[in-house]
Amino acid sequence: MSLAVPVRNVRRAAPAVRAVPRLPRRFAAGVPRYLQIADSLLRQIESGDLKPGDRLPPERALSEALGVTRMTLRQALSRLETQGYLDRRQGSGTFVERPKIERQAGRLVPFSRAMMRRGYRPGARVVVLERQPASVTIAAKLRVPAASPVYFVRRVRLINREPVMLETFWMPVKRFPRFERFTITRRSVYEIMETEYRVKVSRAQQSLEPAVASAYDAGLLGIAAGEPLMLEERLSFDARGRPIEYGKDLYRGDRFRFVTEHAPVEP
Amino acid sequence: MSLAVPVRNVRRAAPAVRAVPRLPRRFAAGVPRYLQIADSLLRQIESGDLKPGDRLPPERALSEALGVTRMTLRQALSRLETQGYLDRRQGSGTFVERPKIERQAGRLVPFSRAMMRRGYRPGARVVVLERQPASVTIAAKLRVPAASPVYFVRRVRLINREPVMLETFWMPVKRFPRFERFTITRRSVYEIMETEYRVKVSRAQQSLEPAVASAYDAGLLGIAAGEPLMLEERLSFDARGRPIEYGKDLYRGDRFRFVTEHAPVEP
Repeated sequence: MSLAVPVRNVRRAAPAVRAVPRLPRRFAAGVPRYLQIADSLLRQIESGDLKPGDRLPPERALSEALGVTRMTLRQALSRLETQGYLDRRQGSGTFVERPKIERQAGRLVPFSRAMMRRGYRPGARVVVLERQPASVTIAAKLRVPAASPVYFVRRVRLINREPVMLETFWMPVKRFPRFERFTITRRSVYEIMETEYRVKVSRAQQSLEPAVASAYDAGLLGIAAGEPLMLEERLSFDARGRPIEYGKDLYRGDRFRFVTEHAPVEP
Repeated sequence: MSLAVPVRNVRRAAPAVRAVPRLPRRFAAGVPRYLQIADSLLRQIESGDLKPGDRLPPERALSEALGVTRMTLRQALSRLETQGYLDRRQGSGTFVERPKIERQAGRLVPFSRAMMRRGYRPGARVVVLERQPASVTIAAKLRVPAASPVYFVRRVRLINREPVMLETFWMPVKRFPRFERFTITRRSVYEIMETEYRVKVSRAQQSLEPAVASAYDAGLLGIAAGEPLMLEERLSFDARGRPIEYGKDLYRGDRFRFVTEHAPVEP
């Protein structure tokens, strides 16, 4: 039984605004020029003079206006790209990035709730919701017999209608019978578990790994293949320590960062 | 003053072992074949029959031996690649991955100490150690005047002589005068801060973001450009809450994963 729903490939709207940054008129001695150029651009991004989505002039024009080599300019742009302030897209130009949304790395805050708190409108599109026999790996994670039935769910998570995360998870059918009757385009899965099944997620083991978007991921997330993604793997447990959900979420690297605040130093 | 040291480009040794996996003789009904192939390979990886670095036979040979289409085989391989068990390198084949080293995402355990605990021999090569005027961004992070002197340090961190992390950090010269006299190829910077300057790192703000290796990163880390990296950004504070170090570490995505255990669920 498969409730696969075709998902439209949503592409980021091509930013139209071509921004002309203020350029340093002269360079201070003793500081590498590329750093001075990067700092000047960064100040304009932080002050809001350059806005998310703005496109910078072509490299040739910029380097000529600055009186520096393209190599020097590229060092400056590359620095800001590494820091997440610029996005240099092959063949289409250099764009000012949007500030990233912060996720707490050490806590399990459901996606919808976290996004609403930040003032975003969360949403979901179901790509697949089906029963399948548990593979050896999934069965071991969920501590169910191999080939016993599990729900396999894949959703594209949206904020303000933009696809930002590709969520994949498995749940034992035995714990959540007839799960397919619920509308998971709108309701949180954890909320359904709690309200409908009296199962409360009480802790989770999580890991974070960098990944690169495959053509499949890229198509669903409306980005280019090869762009950076964060893979969050999660095994959630109920109050009695039994695994109830195993998931792999792929977050768009241009939209999220994962923070741990005030990490205590281990002796 | 620059103490730049040329760094040799260390490439991963080409794995020589060509492994012949055991193949399923027949497929069970009701379970997609690609899952059965993936599970069979996974069992052999987990049991050690297939070893890290082993190369699988070419796709054509494998799919013929299995009696499945190349599409089906690719689904299986791609699944194991996403899970981090296989590494498919364009043009050179499919390799069994080494298990990733786990880093605690919510704790600040110095690299050398964490690696020694795991039985690895840590090391470092200094790429740059120089004084430079603080850029606007670095000055704001470290709460020092812009253009005031900071140490800029970049090291390639090694385990068992293999480059696995590219570390970049800035420290105010005022707090750590004449820092360049210490040998940071062997000593931990936090240990030097404590022993030589009586400054103890007591907490840190950290964030994790996925990134893609630039040609520069790739050259220093001995990997290909475009491979996934984890960017860990860190601002460390002394016991009185003053920032003492701002750093950006790039971890090889094929060698590390970042875990948070038992994440409490936020209400």
